Amino acid sequence: MATAYEQTYLYRLRHSAAHLMAQAVTELYPGAKLSIGPPVENGFYYDIEFETPLREEDLASIEKRMKELSKLDQRIERTEVSRDDAKALILDESIPGMGPAVAEYKLQLLDAIPEGEAISFYDQKRTDREGVHHRFLDLCRGPHVDTTKEIKHFKLMSIAGAYWRGNVKNKQLTRIYGTAWESAEELEAYLHMLEEAKKRDHRILGRELQLFMFSSKVGTGLPLWLPKGATLRDVMVDFLKKEQVKRGYDPVVTPNIANIKLYEKSGHVVNYRDKMFPFMQDDEDEIYILKPMNCPFHIEIYASQMRSYRDLPIRYAEFGTVYRYEQSGEVAGILRARGFTQDDAHLFVTPEQLQDEFVGVVDIMRTVLQKLGLNDFRMRVGTKDPSSDKYVGHDDNWEAATKAITDACDKLGLDYEVSPGDAAFYGPKLDLIIKDALGREWQMGTVQVDYNLPERFELEYIAEDGKPHRPIMIHRAPFGSLERMIGLLTEQYAGAFPLWLSPVQVAVLPIADRHAEPAHELAHKLRELIFDTRNVRVSVDDRRETLGKKIREAQLQKVPFMVILGDKDLENGTVGVRSREDGDLGAMPVEEFIRRFLTG
Amino acid sequence: MATAYEQTYLYRLRHSAAHLMAQAVTELYPGAKLSIGPPVENGFYYDIEFETPLREEDLASIEKRMKELSKLDQRIERTEVSRDDAKALILDESIPGMGPAVAEYKLQLLDAIPEGEAISFYDQKRTDREGVHHRFLDLCRGPHVDTTKEIKHFKLMSIAGAYWRGNVKNKQLTRIYGTAWESAEELEAYLHMLEEAKKRDHRILGRELQLFMFSSKVGTGLPLWLPKGATLRDVMVDFLKKEQVKRGYDPVVTPNIANIKLYEKSGHVVNYRDKMFPFMQDDEDEIYILKPMNCPFHIEIYASQMRSYRDLPIRYAEFGTVYRYEQSGEVAGILRARGFTQDDAHLFVTPEQLQDEFVGVVDIMRTVLQKLGLNDFRMRVGTKDPSSDKYVGHDDNWEAATKAITDACDKLGLDYEVSPGDAAFYGPKLDLIIKDALGREWQMGTVQVDYNLPERFELEYIAEDGKPHRPIMIHRAPFGSLERMIGLLTEQYAGAFPLWLSPVQVAVLPIADRHAEPAHELAHKLRELIFDTRNVRVSVDDRRETLGKKIREAQLQKVPFMVILGDKDLENGTVGVRSREDGDLGAMPVEEFIRRFLTG
Repeated sequence: MATAYEQTYLYRLRHSAAHLMAQAVTELYPGAKLSIGPPVENGFYYDIEFETPLREEDLASIEKRMKELSKLDQRIERTEVSRDDAKALILDESIPGMGPAVAEYKLQLLDAIPEGEAISFYDQKRTDREGVHHRFLDLCRGPHVDTTKEIKHFKLMSIAGAYWRGNVKNKQLTRIYGTAWESAEELEAYLHMLEEAKKRDHRILGRELQLFMFSSKVGTGLPLWLPKGATLRDVMVDFLKKEQVKRGYDPVVTPNIANIKLYEKSGHVVNYRDKMFPFMQDDEDEIYILKPMNCPFHIEIYASQMRSYRDLPIRYAEFGTVYRYEQSGEVAGILRARGFTQDDAHLFVTPEQLQDEFVGVVDIMRTVLQKLGLNDFRMRVGTKDPSSDKYVGHDDNWEAATKAITDACDKLGLDYEVSPGDAAFYGPKLDLIIKDALGREWQMGTVQVDYNLPERFELEYIAEDGKPHRPIMIHRAPFGSLERMIGLLTEQYAGAFPLWLSPVQVAVLPIADRHAEPAHELAHKLRELIFDTRNVRVSVDDRRETLGKKIREAQLQKVPFMVILGDKDLENGTVGVRSREDGDLGAMPVEEFIRRFLTG
Repeated sequence: MATAYEQTYLYRLRHSAAHLMAQAVTELYPGAKLSIGPPVENGFYYDIEFETPLREEDLASIEKRMKELSKLDQRIERTEVSRDDAKALILDESIPGMGPAVAEYKLQLLDAIPEGEAISFYDQKRTDREGVHHRFLDLCRGPHVDTTKEIKHFKLMSIAGAYWRGNVKNKQLTRIYGTAWESAEELEAYLHMLEEAKKRDHRILGRELQLFMFSSKVGTGLPLWLPKGATLRDVMVDFLKKEQVKRGYDPVVTPNIANIKLYEKSGHVVNYRDKMFPFMQDDEDEIYILKPMNCPFHIEIYASQMRSYRDLPIRYAEFGTVYRYEQSGEVAGILRARGFTQDDAHLFVTPEQLQDEFVGVVDIMRTVLQKLGLNDFRMRVGTKDPSSDKYVGHDDNWEAATKAITDACDKLGLDYEVSPGDAAFYGPKLDLIIKDALGREWQMGTVQVDYNLPERFELEYIAEDGKPHRPIMIHRAPFGSLERMIGLLTEQYAGAFPLWLSPVQVAVLPIADRHAEPAHELAHKLRELIFDTRNVRVSVDDRRETLGKKIREAQLQKVPFMVILGDKDLENGTVGVRSREDGDLGAMPVEEFIRRFLTG
């Protein structure tokens, strides 16, 4: 099933840009072996094996050649051929980019095309001033734009390593990323957004704001949360815990490891093995697994007692730290870490309760996003890819679960897009996709409806008819994970978190040593105040530094309020106030500052 | 060095009781092989290999024979012999309990006595009415009481498996536990205490009160915290977090795993290997370890920046979940689990700050114990055992650290006992030993002074002299762990937790279905109230059960207040109140109940 994007002109344009790049590469690097070159979000890439490693600096000359080739107005024509003819073309040395020496991947791609399916090439053709015919052929399903002239607003961005077919056991190819747009303005806006994004990079801000760090002795993708980041986590956890108590969730706490038996029963050992850390085998021949998901633990708690329909819905919530063995190349700061804490919950419901509970879950997710200031989001229903065999459970359960999600969305009047193949292996899901301040989209919180785990674990409740029935599970995580959400928030706010979230809300800056003691007294007084259900968070900078330096550092730390204390202030009972948003507010009585602060 | 207990008459009495038991066993089970039989807290045990498995029921006849042997007034005499004579005695079949068939362990014990040390036997001698001499000899350092007649007030308690020399690779012997006292009253009081303790067993109460559970699919010693237990944890964590913020602690959060490099650097891989879970080795040949201790992570955070004396003291606090591979036989509910959450903190201080910070730490520990109602405790300074080589670091650092602890105790006017061999492998420590409601002692919170880890990790700060100096670390955990402390509190209060700690503080009991809705409204109102800085925790029992049954269940759950709602109450705006401590308080206006509740 084609997504909306796949049906756009822009998608075709980017696909053709990838071919244009391949053409330039084969001219400049005749020994290069092409593999695949699809469009992606914001652009395209091509994976190529080079004879000598390509460097970032080499992109300029490839881009230059692309510009020239574009202007030549080559017609892009589809040609369907038989399998034998396709093979002959791929091995035909007389065509640029073809021939036995560079055919390795194209031949494999040809082999992978199922019998009976059309085999097509796209051919970039032109005749030069001397009347000589030129062509560049690429095995491809298409579709493409009509002429290379349409490919005008593009830029090559970066190179990266990528394994052939995404498998680490295969050869590593060079992936060249490019971007392409319909207009110069759009290209310009995109490049500008990237510049902005770079300034907001959560990895850089995370270090500057002292939110988290990494250590090579601890390991890839395993963040250590510094005091300010740990405070941020605490504030978020506190907020969500209070929301959950209001809505009848029950907290639980479960271990970070379990015997392999638990994950054999759940199916993870078979279906999720590649994301799991290596197993631990003890002398008594028991095998333990670092937990990749909390669900089986919550199921064990559910199953520990006989349940009645009167006990349902049961809503178990846990801030559960899980570990997933992401490829080291895929780890990215805290946005994609190997250890992270999910704001996880599992609801056990009767079929009659499913829709109401699902609506309730979507509602808490909306509340959370609103509180975080993330108001621009859309919904995506991830369903089963009918052609894949990675899913467990009966078809009718899958259907019922998918229907429950779309019905709930319809009831709530929410727009959603259906994305086949995006389901979890045990059930369909609803993803929230957030658009950030730079217009970038992030897949964050998720809700999943699950008939399969209750089946595997033979969960039951005694219904009104006195007989055992199977409950349905809902998995949900409004933040997704604390790590990923804090990563997003850091980029969204460029580190200037809303007041309620700021790790330090007020920085008290004594001008000289003699103001240090009253500064600490003021800090003490401010810390007694309650803002947004928590005590106000105050720091005191009593170092022997100039006021200018202290102000600059508090600015870099993006502290919402600075409160400056000098001789005059002590005389008059005032403080000098600087607001992150409104700048220098001058001297005011302490009580006035407090009023101003507490009203946000 | 002998402890105070080892110098008492009671200690000798119990040691002699062990010998008396051994004598009875050799008479009743001639093939039994004796190994060791020391006194322990409250009694003694003897590890014995039986030809056929001993059953709990067999203890009565052994005890009966001990009573008879006691009355025979056997003198207990020490006799020192040469090594050769000792061997000859052990192999002499004519003496009860001796001979080649049963000599296996005694010969090993003889071999283990160092050259030059005295080899002694204790001999229980009597001459019967017919003038026949009887004796029972046991290889033993002693000392003992003078005659078996003194051993009057004893009881055999239980049997258990125990590996020879505590090594799982050796044969499993049968350990018979007994208790012995100087008077009938003391024995009686002890047995009564045990009865009481049984009623308070945290494993039973933990299940009844639905605090936590275990699952064979998850594994031994890995508790799953149910909603009420998770709430209890939350309340305790919240309380301590607030205390820590007040005292200038900074929160941090670190992963549950680390690369082996971290624990190689810290020395744990060498010195703590036997308590660590099996390692995880990935395809990239990196080895990960499930964290047994948080310290190395906090050190990594300290070491991530250049520190100045003006930044110190730094106090990193984390509720860190750690995993220790306790022998499965040693795991006991949540008192000794394999996974538990420490209320851990590490302070990095200058030598000048050490004493003040140590005093501050002991103060927060006292505050915590007071809040928990654990007011009866003593201090023990665990020092290095000079004869052991399990310790790391320089002698002068050990001396300085030990002095810092005892000086701080002296300054605070705290009594303490010194216990050689109880130090951590990296430094001496101060343990808090709590006496509970039944008079039992529990080693709980701990403070450790550590010069060694800063040395191993080459930690530094720039002192006032502009040069790098080494900070000192203090490790501390006032609860010890949440698991162990909740285990103790459960037994201390027999599940009737103080109001501020109770997972459910008020149970609202509607009498009939028509009162369910007002009951939920009342619960909603009560939940808005703040008690001890948190919202009041309220449950509603709206099942179709009789009021009597609802009251009984709330009583079993040890809920501090029950609030009953019926027709009359709705008419009059009252509620019927039952207090856990004061019983039925009759009907009162809702506001009066709230006043009463909020004042404790």
